[in-house]
Amino acid sequence: MVKKVLIANRGEIALRVLRACKELGISTVAVHSTADNAAMHVRLADESVCIGPPPSRDSYLNIPSILAACEISGADAVHPGYGFLSENARFADILDAHGLTFIGPTADHIRIMGDKIEAKRTAKRLGIPVVPGSAGAVTEDAEALKIAEEIGYPVIVKASAGGGGRGMKVAKTREDMVLALQTARQEAGAAFGDDAVYIEKYLEKPRHIEVQVFGDGAGNAIHLGERDCSLQRRHQKVWEEANSPALTGEQRERIGTICANAMRDLKYRGAGTIEFLYENGEFYFIEMNTRLQVEHPVTEAITGMDLVHEQIRVASGQGLSATQDEIVFSGHAIECRINAEDPRSFAPSPGKITYYHAPGGLGVRVDSAVYQGYSIPPFYDSLIGKLIVHGRNRAECMMRLRRALDEIVVDGVKTTLPLFRDLVDNADIGAGDYDIHWLEKYLAAGAKA
Amino acid sequence: MVKKVLIANRGEIALRVLRACKELGISTVAVHSTADNAAMHVRLADESVCIGPPPSRDSYLNIPSILAACEISGADAVHPGYGFLSENARFADILDAHGLTFIGPTADHIRIMGDKIEAKRTAKRLGIPVVPGSAGAVTEDAEALKIAEEIGYPVIVKASAGGGGRGMKVAKTREDMVLALQTARQEAGAAFGDDAVYIEKYLEKPRHIEVQVFGDGAGNAIHLGERDCSLQRRHQKVWEEANSPALTGEQRERIGTICANAMRDLKYRGAGTIEFLYENGEFYFIEMNTRLQVEHPVTEAITGMDLVHEQIRVASGQGLSATQDEIVFSGHAIECRINAEDPRSFAPSPGKITYYHAPGGLGVRVDSAVYQGYSIPPFYDSLIGKLIVHGRNRAECMMRLRRALDEIVVDGVKTTLPLFRDLVDNADIGAGDYDIHWLEKYLAAGAKA
Repeated sequence: MVKKVLIANRGEIALRVLRACKELGISTVAVHSTADNAAMHVRLADESVCIGPPPSRDSYLNIPSILAACEISGADAVHPGYGFLSENARFADILDAHGLTFIGPTADHIRIMGDKIEAKRTAKRLGIPVVPGSAGAVTEDAEALKIAEEIGYPVIVKASAGGGGRGMKVAKTREDMVLALQTARQEAGAAFGDDAVYIEKYLEKPRHIEVQVFGDGAGNAIHLGERDCSLQRRHQKVWEEANSPALTGEQRERIGTICANAMRDLKYRGAGTIEFLYENGEFYFIEMNTRLQVEHPVTEAITGMDLVHEQIRVASGQGLSATQDEIVFSGHAIECRINAEDPRSFAPSPGKITYYHAPGGLGVRVDSAVYQGYSIPPFYDSLIGKLIVHGRNRAECMMRLRRALDEIVVDGVKTTLPLFRDLVDNADIGAGDYDIHWLEKYLAAGAKA
Repeated sequence: MVKKVLIANRGEIALRVLRACKELGISTVAVHSTADNAAMHVRLADESVCIGPPPSRDSYLNIPSILAACEISGADAVHPGYGFLSENARFADILDAHGLTFIGPTADHIRIMGDKIEAKRTAKRLGIPVVPGSAGAVTEDAEALKIAEEIGYPVIVKASAGGGGRGMKVAKTREDMVLALQTARQEAGAAFGDDAVYIEKYLEKPRHIEVQVFGDGAGNAIHLGERDCSLQRRHQKVWEEANSPALTGEQRERIGTICANAMRDLKYRGAGTIEFLYENGEFYFIEMNTRLQVEHPVTEAITGMDLVHEQIRVASGQGLSATQDEIVFSGHAIECRINAEDPRSFAPSPGKITYYHAPGGLGVRVDSAVYQGYSIPPFYDSLIGKLIVHGRNRAECMMRLRRALDEIVVDGVKTTLPLFRDLVDNADIGAGDYDIHWLEKYLAAGAKA
């Protein structure tokens, strides 16, 4: 087992990792910027090292500073949390070269999944369903129509050289398609000087569903079910749940098995998340995140597994603590991301927390690094905590979330808590009836929050 | 379903019940003494009614005041919590006479179990194992020796008229027994003017193990496993866990089934706890508590069932939400009772909480009604909160407890937290090797706390 872990992160995830280390009897080293001297992860770690000033490039992203902190403290392993250096293959390589354990996948796997084209190619090869479409640019209408028939309408015609929505046309029928090809080519030619277009399946109201996977690096791999993260604002997840209200047990089992088998074939090591768009019973690969996700606690709630414990076990060469057959899924969990932001404008609201009270009782978990009197610095992500509730079913979970939201108090800064107090009473959310566009439309329509 | 519940209690249990009501969409009425105007259960309830000054006999124990509060608020049901009126059969009768639902067992069952002799007789009739002994006073040595052989040494000879330890003699062998009888009779005669003695099985190092039962009042009953509450100081439980480290799966199943069957035969309604002393594989009935227990959260942790939800369901005539076969036991849980007391002298330490920070993260639950700035009044029980941790096994649970105890902050008053920080590192506790005398001996030996 690794003996001393340096946590190369800040905020709630630094505390999350620190808790897991303490529970495993592993010493902890916090690193922090000068803006984070009073941060909770610094207070609770066995040792701490200041690695520079804000912004992050001068401290949390500064690899030489982190290496120096490892040397000073004698840490033998680094946990990168999420964000910052967590998906930096070069960082993983450098740690390896210095004989330090990176608590994460191999640099090669980080690199493959960090390259969108390479990731999709790998996913396809491993049997993970990807968005169907033409193999490349399509020049003949007849060929385009044939491909569209094969993948089924609606399809989207996209400029090969494109971006920003220009040269993109949706065709819902064969009749639409001829016009869409013509218009897309014209727009593409005008905008990019290149009228080449390609074709993809068009998803109208997809959900974002992701599968949590875990591998031991030696060809054993499991899945821990899925999370539904469709409630997003500007591609940022806001509310996540497990299981997805949209899936049947059979679908869940099928996609989970596909992902676990893929990770087995890849000899993947550590925690990973395979993200999909989902529509009409079909899954379409988006990307794979080769790290712990912000929303991992909903999976922990329904499986009882501590994912950071597992990461450390695997990084220490001890393998996974459970086989697929031993994983028991139980109940339903929801996570709300509490940001220090204005709940209407979403403008960041750093500053001092003048009163803080965490909710308690059965089925309620709070992951937060804030405390009363703590000043949220203006230099970082505005996530200040996560409220996770667990119930025997989704209805119980929603009721529990409502009462936990009644109890929590964060004064002194604006937070997104009022948004969640509205969402928990919304009929669509209550019915689990939402897609990736739902929240944007709700906010645009002038939601109460 | 009941519509509006008056919570006839205070402190953490009032908040516990309030949370369950909120989760079920039931309105809540808090009652409080003038000393509890600023209590959290008052702040979070839909309505509140002041029912008098401290001490409790003038408010929380004042039945006419509570009835008046029901009438004023239009509550149709009363949850008594634990303590106060929770095992008062007359209170249950009076509520019944007023057409109000008592969220608890029938008055008859409360009455039977409240009478020690009647309770033991009933337990025996229902097949629950009781302490073996003579049927009454034993006058002849030959008869006494025969009974002692039957129940097995060691036995204890007790004065029929006795109390306070006088006239009590333990015999470990047949040779001891003759002398024990003679001495006990002499002491009894001298002390009480009555030399009649009786014989019981003597337990040297028993554990306190209790079984959580639930009945629907119509002959359906289940058990939710056991709790080990052997760590006690002056008969007050301090640390409780589920499952008991002492039992095998087979023993657990056997005693659980006996208790569930007994409750089925009794047509018991609501939550109950059947308490036993346990030694050398045998269970000996002590008493039955016809209410929710302080330590119920450890059972909730390992079953995922919300016991207060179940109480309300059953009181509303909806039956239990699960059959015995549907109960799945998962992992291990420990509860620490945090008292506002000096951790050495156990003298109460009321006063203002100047800083409060609850621990968070996976597997950690806090049930407490205190908050920063709250003043603990001097009139009531010193329990201010409960820390409950859950892990996949006992070892994980202990490590998690240790790190949660590192995180929790309660400043301004003395608490028993230092005691738990010592206990969690103690080798006997780590091994689960303790009996009902262990904590007293530990404290007498001048424990670090």
